[in-house]
Parts: sequence; C-alpha cells; structure tokens
Amino acid sequence: MTDAELRERAAKVIPGGMYGHLNAAIFGPGFPQFFVRGDGCRQWDADGREYVDLMCSWGPVILGHRHPRVEAAAAAQHASGDCLNGPGPVMVELAELLVDLIPSADWAMFSKNGTDATTQALMVARAATGRAKVLVAHGAYHGADPWCTPSLAGTTPSDRADIVEYPYNDLAGLQAAAATVDGDVAAVIATPFKHDSFEDQELVDASFARGARELADRIGAALVIDDVRAGFRLDLRGSWESLGVRPDLTAWSKAMANGYPIAAVTGTDALRSAAQTLYSTGSFWFSAVAMAAAKATIETLREIDGPAVMERSGARLRAGLAAQAAAHGFTVNQTGPVQIPWLSFEGDATLEKAMYWSAACLEEGVYLHPWHNWFLSAAHTDADIDRALQATDTAFARLRTKFGTD
Amino acid sequence: MTDAELRERAAKVIPGGMYGHLNAAIFGPGFPQFFVRGDGCRQWDADGREYVDLMCSWGPVILGHRHPRVEAAAAAQHASGDCLNGPGPVMVELAELLVDLIPSADWAMFSKNGTDATTQALMVARAATGRAKVLVAHGAYHGADPWCTPSLAGTTPSDRADIVEYPYNDLAGLQAAAATVDGDVAAVIATPFKHDSFEDQELVDASFARGARELADRIGAALVIDDVRAGFRLDLRGSWESLGVRPDLTAWSKAMANGYPIAAVTGTDALRSAAQTLYSTGSFWFSAVAMAAAKATIETLREIDGPAVMERSGARLRAGLAAQAAAHGFTVNQTGPVQIPWLSFEGDATLEKAMYWSAACLEEGVYLHPWHNWFLSAAHTDADIDRALQATDTAFARLRTKFGTD
Repeated sequence: MTDAELRERAAKVIPGGMYGHLNAAIFGPGFPQFFVRGDGCRQWDADGREYVDLMCSWGPVILGHRHPRVEAAAAAQHASGDCLNGPGPVMVELAELLVDLIPSADWAMFSKNGTDATTQALMVARAATGRAKVLVAHGAYHGADPWCTPSLAGTTPSDRADIVEYPYNDLAGLQAAAATVDGDVAAVIATPFKHDSFEDQELVDASFARGARELADRIGAALVIDDVRAGFRLDLRGSWESLGVRPDLTAWSKAMANGYPIAAVTGTDALRSAAQTLYSTGSFWFSAVAMAAAKATIETLREIDGPAVMERSGARLRAGLAAQAAAHGFTVNQTGPVQIPWLSFEGDATLEKAMYWSAACLEEGVYLHPWHNWFLSAAHTDADIDRALQATDTAFARLRTKFGTD
Repeated sequence: MTDAELRERAAKVIPGGMYGHLNAAIFGPGFPQFFVRGDGCRQWDADGREYVDLMCSWGPVILGHRHPRVEAAAAAQHASGDCLNGPGPVMVELAELLVDLIPSADWAMFSKNGTDATTQALMVARAATGRAKVLVAHGAYHGADPWCTPSLAGTTPSDRADIVEYPYNDLAGLQAAAATVDGDVAAVIATPFKHDSFEDQELVDASFARGARELADRIGAALVIDDVRAGFRLDLRGSWESLGVRPDLTAWSKAMANGYPIAAVTGTDALRSAAQTLYSTGSFWFSAVAMAAAKATIETLREIDGPAVMERSGARLRAGLAAQAAAHGFTVNQTGPVQIPWLSFEGDATLEKAMYWSAACLEEGVYLHPWHNWFLSAAHTDADIDRALQATDTAFARLRTKFGTD
C-alpha cells in the first residue's frame, strides 16, 4: 500500500486524513505521511524510501530504534506483565533512578503524555500555593490540552483565564507579568531554551534563568521547567543544571524511554505533600513495560554519556551544514543546542527555501524539517552524519539551481 | 522484594508512595500495591500470591493477559516499528475498523488516555458549536484533567467554569441544567450507565437516553458518550446502540487494546470538519504497536462476540454471589451490567463489611474491590468463575463469623 493510497483511505476515516504534530500535510510538499520501519537512526516510509532520520520521531527516539538493551528490558518486563492491578517493582526502581540522577528531584510521578506532565506540574504548584495563575512564555509549546494548545479551536476563554504570558529571556518582562497578578502566581513555567516552531531557536540567557529562580523564590511560586522536548539530550541532570538553576518541578517525557510511552514530573521535598493531594491518574500510567524501557534508556544514556555523544554528532552536523551553506552561497541560521538543532535560511520568511530544501533532502535520503527543530540520537554515528551531509549538500546544490545564491 | 519492602522504598521517591486509581492505600486493608505477573484472568502480586482477577487492571484487560492473537499482532508491528515519524498503515486500518463497527462513527482520532479522549470530544463539540458550556452528570468520572478530576486539589475555579452539572437519569434535571446556560451548550456528556465509585451502579433509563438525544438535537449541542470504562464490554457498536440512541461523539479507551495504551474519539460526519480544526496531539499518540494491539483486540472481540462471552460469565458470577449471600444471611446489592458488576452490602454505609469481605476475598485468592466496580474479561471461563465463587463463599462465611448475619 503506497503512501498516496493510505492517505486516500485515511481521508475517509480520520478528520483531515491526519492531525497533530505528525500531520505531513502541514510540513510542506514531499513529506511522506506513513512510516513502516525504524532501525537505529534510519526510518523507512510506506513507499519503501529509507532516510537517515534527523527528527527521531519528534524527539522520543534517543538511542535509536530497536536498541538492544532497551528492547531486552521491555521484553523481559512484557513477559511477566505490563498493565496489572498495580505497578510493578520497576516503578520504584525508575523513581529511584530519577531521584538519584536529577539533583532537583526528590520524588517522581509518572504519566503518559508530555501534556500530562506539564499539566500535573501546574496542579502540584497550585495545590502547594493555593494560587491560580501561571506565567507562561509567549509562543512556548507546553502541550495540547486546552490550556496550552497552540490553536484556540475547541478551547474556551476559561481555559486560558489563569495563564499570564511573559516574553522568553526577558527578565523585566517576566517581572512585569508577575506584577499583574501579584500574590496569585502559583508557578512560572519555562522551556529550557526557546524552541518555538517557525522561529530560530534561542538558548536561555543565564541571567534570565537565575532571575526567574529568584523571582519564583521571592513571590513564593514554583519554578517549573518543561523539559519534555529537551530532556535527556542536553544534560541528564536537567537542562538548567549547568547554569546552577534548579527548578522546583520538572516535566519529562519524549526521550525518556526511547519511544515507549511515558512521562514524568519530578519535584522537590517541599512540594511532596502537595503532590500527594492530587487525584491525577490514567488507565495506562502504571504499566510496567514503558517503565522498564525508561529505566534501561536512562541507565544507558548515563553509562555512555548520551548528551556528549549527541553533542559530538550534532557538532559534526552543524559544522558540515555551515560549510555547505557557505560553499553554495547561502546565509543560514543554525540555532539551538547542537543535539536539538535547526537550520533556517536568512530572509526566508515565507519558508519557500526551507520547504524546497527540506523536500530535496527527503529525496536525497535525509529526513529533517522545514519549520520544527530536529533531534539527534546517540545512534547517529559519524558515518550517519556524513551520509546525511551528502544528502544536504545535494539539496543545497538543487536549491541554488532553483533560487540562485543569496 | 516483598510488597512491604517495595512500599517502604516507594514512600521515599513517589508522593504518598503511590497515587491515582491504583493507589492501594485507599482501597482498604489487605490490598497489595505491587504486581509482577499476569496470565489470562490471573494476576500475581509481588508477594507471589495468585488471584483470579475480577478487576482486569481497572478495565483494560478484556481478552486476558498474554492473549496470543493480540500479542502476535503487537509483536509483528513492534518488529518493524512503533514510534516513527508518522503513523503506520495500521492507523488507517484501525480507524476503518471502528467506522465499520460503530454505527455512530464516521471517523476516529486516537490518543493515549481516556481523559485525552473525553477532553478531545468536548473540544470537537466546542469547535463545532462555538459554545463553551458542557453538561456533566453530578458525580460522574470523566478522567483526571483539571476540568474533571474528582478532587479539586490543584484545580482552579476557571477549570470548572464551563461545566454545568445535571443529575444522571433525570431528564427534567438535565433540561433544567441546559436552561441555565441556554444558547451556550456545546455538549451533553454522559457515561452509558451510572458507575460512580462508592455507589450502587445504575443502568441508564432508556427514556433518559432518548431524552438526552432529543435535547441535544433541539439545542444544537453534541451528545457525547463517555464509553471509556464500559466500551467493548456491553456492545461493540457503542453502549447505547441497543437503546437506539446514537451519540455524536464517543470517547473510548481502557479495553480497546487489551492493556496496550490507546484511546479514541469517534464521531459523525457532521462533526468531521470541526474535528479537523483542533490541534490535539501527543508524542506517542501515533505509535503503531498499540494500534496493532487494538485492531487485534477488537477483531477478536467481534469474532467471539466478546460482550456475550462476558455476559455469560458475569451472569454466572452474579447468580453465584446472590446464592451465597442469601445462604450466609446477607442482603447485598448487585448492580450494573453483569460484565461490569459490583456488589455492596445493604446498610454498609461505612464500607465496614465491604472492606472486610473484599480483604477476605483477596486472602482466598480472588481480587475484587470494595468501592469501585469490577470488570469481567473474555478470559474468565466457568472454571475461573467457580474458583472465584469458592473464594467469595469462604469470605462470606468469614464475614458472618465476624459481623453475624443481617
């Protein structure tokens, strides 16, 4: 069954034929919708085309598909039990691992979606403070529940009534936002860097991070890091640990189990009793297989220093792309951490070049994205990066033929 | 590692040692917290005790643990790919299956939690109507997001600002609730029968169901059935189909993939374009393994007429319990459909008898619950039910020794 045939069938039984962040219709021309296989850092679409994958399924795959240790752990757990009348011992082991690994973590709660974790973190903060308002960076993605989904379709004004926006990396702006709801701020939530779609990424300013911590302390609010997207790729201890800034609560998901569905909130002792008051649960939140996969994933990342592995291959990719862009006469912006990279073309407001170039990359065998950040995994070897760079080089050449140089 | 040892470790790294609907601390004395194995309709706790399981992991397990056909489908999908850059062909096949099976379904959207599905259904209704309010039965469980979690801890008044309560099975009450927000009702949501915790269950009154349908039509609101808990156990076509009442939207989850994590919303053509406007998504919503498991589960349930199989074993259980209660001199209330049964003791407002009896049942080798409905699966044979009844009989005898007869 070809991608085109599958899309035709899908259009009849799925609204729009597809929806959400994997809806290829919104990526640009040439993107396949259906995928059939993954192995290491390679994926195959329904038409049988093989890609060096630079999206990692939008983050979850961090050790590569079919990673032996993760698969062995998941299979062993699966052989005894997954969804039972209570959690398996592995829930305790996983929580202990997170508490051991993450300096700001005295406890952990598990769920399924990144949105579960961000929502749960805000609930803990509200339960602890008895306050309602949450300061959220303008344009930041914290999930797809009504309080945070980027589209207002299907939401009501009440869904956003307790959200107050501030500008990322702007401490005065954050302070001003807090002042508008003085005395009622339950939490300040921030992604560890600015990774909004359609925009160049922006690393966090250390003084902003420290200022946010000070503000939260001063006003008695919780500082929440949404590490759903970046977690486990930059620093296993939490993405602001290297800045010396520790959150009260952190939301984790995506990469934590190498593709198995799980999310978590970690928090400090000060918030433990508040966390205990929530009724927050889900039918599959305590299933053991995803927890066993998470434990094996995180242990592996720790042993191999996963972030450093990805930093190395990410740096190779960035350097290669920079050289290619220069050689082909294009001015590009490569932004974000090298493990979670993105490339935009200078002055390409309509994304015309990005769309053409990414489609050409696809045709040449590398899967990346025109308007959403990419993800490296620890499965990307130098040879994989070089294979990807071979494809991007041809894509730059085709772009030059089509549009000329800058 | 014993259950007691695991609890001690858990208390240090998980708020309260456990949380949510599988938190054994709130079930009553004697309930194990940790489970290590499942097979068919049997489960084993961390202390190695084997149970005939009448909870089915609070619903998800409907064909029994380790069901060969479901496991084969999941394994085959897993061998090629799970969490990829797009859904697998199985997403289309699963949506087609639901549309074929469920008369009210012209399309399907998938997610992970039952709460995802109920929330998504309300978003579709709001997007379609441009209205905010939702009529929700007092005491009904629709999930654990801030708009619906049974505890207000961590929620704000805004989270409930668009919720208007009505009394279940009371058409005049529903109409009155609608009148209070005349012109602004996006949806009426109802569980297919009243299955609130701590209360005897109540089947839906057909005139209430039909009246709710008429009301929704008259005021231009969507009728949403929350079939997360009851779905696939009573009627594969939807739990109100036998009443001749078709919803506009239905939320599904729990039993749909025999324990694999998945949820769905199905809806009518009239709501398709509204559904298309949502941005509703999750990192693992399009993973293929759970979809392959769902397809195999639903196909199997259709082939064996799963609801009829469970009805047969449920009827055997109900008759056996009735005879035992009478023989031991207890007046009990057995309520709800036989596939989703519950037993309470007359006049046992403090749950003293229920707690004692259920703990005795555990000790005798049957796992059931003192204040939450139970679940049958298609894996329960006559012999399993008889084994369970052997345990419950001894538990009744012990209850009589402890409390005397009614």
